[in-house]
Amino acid sequence: MEKMASNWFWEYVTPNFIQQFSISDILYSGKSDYQDIQVLESPGFGRCLILDGKIQCSTFDEFIYHEALVHPAMITHPNPENVFIAGGGEGATLREVLAHKTVKNAIMVDLDEKVVDLCKEYLPTLSNGAFDDPRTELINDDAMKYLNETKEKFDVVIIDLPEPLEEGPAYLLYTQEFYKDLLTKLTPNGLMCLQAGCTSMIIVYGYTAVIKTLSTAFSAVAPYQAEIPAFGGTWGFAIASSSLDPHDLSVEDVDKRIAERIQKPLRFYDGITHRGIFSIPKYLRGQIAAETKVITKDNPLFTY
Amino acid sequence: MEKMASNWFWEYVTPNFIQQFSISDILYSGKSDYQDIQVLESPGFGRCLILDGKIQCSTFDEFIYHEALVHPAMITHPNPENVFIAGGGEGATLREVLAHKTVKNAIMVDLDEKVVDLCKEYLPTLSNGAFDDPRTELINDDAMKYLNETKEKFDVVIIDLPEPLEEGPAYLLYTQEFYKDLLTKLTPNGLMCLQAGCTSMIIVYGYTAVIKTLSTAFSAVAPYQAEIPAFGGTWGFAIASSSLDPHDLSVEDVDKRIAERIQKPLRFYDGITHRGIFSIPKYLRGQIAAETKVITKDNPLFTY
Amino acid sequence: MEKMASNWFWEYVTPNFIQQFSISDILYSGKSDYQDIQVLESPGFGRCLILDGKIQCSTFDEFIYHEALVHPAMITHPNPENVFIAGGGEGATLREVLAHKTVKNAIMVDLDEKVVDLCKEYLPTLSNGAFDDPRTELINDDAMKYLNETKEKFDVVIIDLPEPLEEGPAYLLYTQEFYKDLLTKLTPNGLMCLQAGCTSMIIVYGYTAVIKTLSTAFSAVAPYQAEIPAFGGTWGFAIASSSLDPHDLSVEDVDKRIAERIQKPLRFYDGITHRGIFSIPKYLRGQIAAETKVITKDNPLFTY
Amino acid sequence: MEKMASNWFWEYVTPNFIQQFSISDILYSGKSDYQDIQVLESPGFGRCLILDGKIQCSTFDEFIYHEALVHPAMITHPNPENVFIAGGGEGATLREVLAHKTVKNAIMVDLDEKVVDLCKEYLPTLSNGAFDDPRTELINDDAMKYLNETKEKFDVVIIDLPEPLEEGPAYLLYTQEFYKDLLTKLTPNGLMCLQAGCTSMIIVYGYTAVIKTLSTAFSAVAPYQAEIPAFGGTWGFAIASSSLDPHDLSVEDVDKRIAERIQKPLRFYDGITHRGIFSIPKYLRGQIAAETKVITKDNPLFTY
Repeated sequence: MEKMASNWFWEYVTPNFIQQFSISDILYSGKSDYQDIQVLESPGFGRCLILDGKIQCSTFDEFIYHEALVHPAMITHPNPENVFIAGGGEGATLREVLAHKTVKNAIMVDLDEKVVDLCKEYLPTLSNGAFDDPRTELINDDAMKYLNETKEKFDVVIIDLPEPLEEGPAYLLYTQEFYKDLLTKLTPNGLMCLQAGCTSMIIVYGYTAVIKTLSTAFSAVAPYQAEIPAFGGTWGFAIASSSLDPHDLSVEDVDKRIAERIQKPLRFYDGITHRGIFSIPKYLRGQIAAETKVITKDNPLFTY
Repeated sequence: MEKMASNWFWEYVTPNFIQQFSISDILYSGKSDYQDIQVLESPGFGRCLILDGKIQCSTFDEFIYHEALVHPAMITHPNPENVFIAGGGEGATLREVLAHKTVKNAIMVDLDEKVVDLCKEYLPTLSNGAFDDPRTELINDDAMKYLNETKEKFDVVIIDLPEPLEEGPAYLLYTQEFYKDLLTKLTPNGLMCLQAGCTSMIIVYGYTAVIKTLSTAFSAVAPYQAEIPAFGGTWGFAIASSSLDPHDLSVEDVDKRIAERIQKPLRFYDGITHRGIFSIPKYLRGQIAAETKVITKDNPLFTY
Repeated sequence: MEKMASNWFWEYVTPNFIQQFSISDILYSGKSDYQDIQVLESPGFGRCLILDGKIQCSTFDEFIYHEALVHPAMITHPNPENVFIAGGGEGATLREVLAHKTVKNAIMVDLDEKVVDLCKEYLPTLSNGAFDDPRTELINDDAMKYLNETKEKFDVVIIDLPEPLEEGPAYLLYTQEFYKDLLTKLTPNGLMCLQAGCTSMIIVYGYTAVIKTLSTAFSAVAPYQAEIPAFGGTWGFAIASSSLDPHDLSVEDVDKRIAERIQKPLRFYDGITHRGIFSIPKYLRGQIAAETKVITKDNPLFTY
Repeated sequence: MEKMASNWFWEYVTPNFIQQFSISDILYSGKSDYQDIQVLESPGFGRCLILDGKIQCSTFDEFIYHEALVHPAMITHPNPENVFIAGGGEGATLREVLAHKTVKNAIMVDLDEKVVDLCKEYLPTLSNGAFDDPRTELINDDAMKYLNETKEKFDVVIIDLPEPLEEGPAYLLYTQEFYKDLLTKLTPNGLMCLQAGCTSMIIVYGYTAVIKTLSTAFSAVAPYQAEIPAFGGTWGFAIASSSLDPHDLSVEDVDKRIAERIQKPLRFYDGITHRGIFSIPKYLRGQIAAETKVITKDNPLFTY
């Protein structure tokens, strides 16, 4: 019989649910000005980035998260040239954005320089050279502050932040106020997309509130989800815009645009996947329709 | 701050992955002739049935599993009248089958009478009266033996068994030999469907082998998946037949058949859900296509 | 191979140390006005009382704790007649006190009536009829308030309280102020004794501070320890008085007094055990000698 | 509030008891020809050696284990010159032996050269130069085979082996046959000593059988115990000989011999500690007296 592992990482997914995975090495453990940071090696998920005790990505399944976050919005846009990424310190969101031939400029604004540097060192396949691409502009700053001050407009804005915790500033990027400001930073066909937490049915309260809040700021909001094993279940995303709806693209449309625009093989996303991720189950559509909470500065959302 | 729970159920999902959920009561703990049986109460999942240390269903999310297992096959069939269920001791699969007005006879053969009895007592919402329905025939026997001996043919055969473990007899119901026999028990338009384990990308080896094996016995095999939170991720299913393909049904076709045939509100399944669950991600389609293992009596599959 | 247990109680012994034991039933789970209360059944420890997530006693090893808490002080006293117990809701401390023929009155003051009642119901062997003994006076009140107000003096005062937590009132009974007041409640040969937390070397900070504080109020302080498996290691106790020293008793003295005074067989305590528990290891004597912290109302001690 | 640790080592102490401690680094993880080996860094215990998933020693509390194993036998002997160590790969048992000025030769026979080498590299304070002492002879071999073949006799033989597991050869060194052979390898005043597993009351079955078995081979057997936090409770030891009894030494005798013979400060062991560790609790004396199992080659002892 196989010997049991004796070293484990464990995380509260909810106060009543813990997931543990075995680890074979602790490659880095330290702090930045903003958060605790760990890089772990694990037999089940490969190399993992942990921020404040919560897994952010693993080399085995990060392709799902990053393809799911980036490509649906990018493919729905007819010709995304200027892209803004809020957060995304690992560089993998940037990597997926730059795979689109249409992109001319990609501005990534992340507060925590140390995460960016550690990922370059310990998780180089995440950025895979993206920080050296001439189209990239990397800025270490607060993404909301940068967006407030910039005069530029973007075809696609991608919000790639940890979940909003009481202690951190990220919660402001999940508010109605921010979304309304963001609308003014988009070009006429512009879209924004984001991740918004777990959609496993037992713990969706945060996700549905984000969707509800988006719908008070944008006329078209498309929720979707993908299973991310390292996150312990399905994960919720959304695309929001004033005009474009990803549901309007057929399987063939998506596959055609991928073939025309994306310069590398994809592992998760194609036309069938596009159709699947936007066809969310009936109960989740019901929970979204029933949600009344609008997240504002005065009524914020904090996750566990 | 919320107090942390101190009593937990925990389960190895894989040798490198453990899930724990908090429990508030141990309602039953004992043994049948075939397995250890527990009924637990939990804040996160409601009441749970545990067999041999593995969660079988929870009252909070069992509707996903049972609707996903039963309705796609039943709706794909033009007029399912005779249905056979192998296993399904909780009675919830039977409950979903009987919701179809078309059904005239539902034969359920489960080896472990004690599970059936305990579920009636502790988890009555699972069967919800299905065992008393005049269309039901409940037989305590080995399902494979029963199928071998019966002269009847069925419109839909549903395999609702625990995963194949080395110690138990269930593994024979995951073999090519069984699937070939089963084909002869189906009516001309008949279909079979089954659950076949986890499809979270890190642990799919069993699922793809089942799909491969089905494809050696049936001309049409349709894999699909649904997120079951209590099982720790997405769960794989399949429909197999010699003629009918669930992909041929549009969203509207599914919704129309549901409206015509099903006498109760569904929570998980409808036309959009049907489209979503059959649109599995690209990498999983690739893993299925690449699988070469055919499960036979001499080359069986055992899960962890 | 033996199947692994799947239901577990777990407790942080320190922030870096967790102990888990398997449970077979949750007999009671609720709240009193003062604390969360659970009664668990476990294969390894028998029936266990849990307060605020921390194990208080188990039927398998409670005899060690209660004999170690009560008998060294009672036997050191030449003729203990009037005994006061602060806390001790389970009734087992009272049970051990009443085993001494010399005892004429035993006053037990415990704040939480619900713990007393639940222990009578679920853990009757703990009190074993002690609450019905005519020498017993049980008062539901704050023990410190009662001692402040009483005119009585006692031969032995036993402090049997949970560890001092920030939220609860128990911390006041671990202060210099309380110990000085307590001295005035003792008869000339009177002693007090208490439990004072873990003495496993890695986590003794609380214990040594209690000993230091006692030594500022009493002229004779005798620290001692006993292994309590359910508590995860050795547990510290102390006897304090203005005159009597338990070290003065030989093995034979102790055995003689036990034979003369105690009406039931003991399992843990006798003359050799007495000698052993007061012969604490060199490093612990060193830690006690080096301690400078005196616990006061303004400089209290809170355990994890 | 303090953040909770997320990386943990965990170990089954019994099938119904798990201890977990947090880890900050995995310094080494690999295999020798005989066992899995890990070196972990932990906030609570310092640096730890793990063999086959079981903690062998930690830098925070190894002084207790090694002083408790070595000094009682060495001090009980009037003039130990020739010492044999079976096992003891970390080098700390050797370190304590060599602290005795009386020692002229110390032969250490350990099967697993890799453990010796890894401990020199990762845990150098354990041997602290002992392998370079001119009195040391280190032999990589099977200790029992070596003892069988040697013509030498020893004043003190120290058995410092992992617990007997079904897969390993160590179990033979816990048998009556071995103890009888060993007696012939001792000088007239010679003693042997060993560790023999946990004595926390709930899990003593192994320890009492070892004591019983020793008593069939040696005329004087003295059981004793010490709390080892990293081992999860009190740990049992024994001294056996045909003539000398450690109980005959007073506190003052022990302190005098230490002062005369030992060239470094001790942290755990002195006269009072000696008195304490041999004064084991009444219930444990009772369990030892009641034990009937004699461990033989044909009736071996295997721990969990």
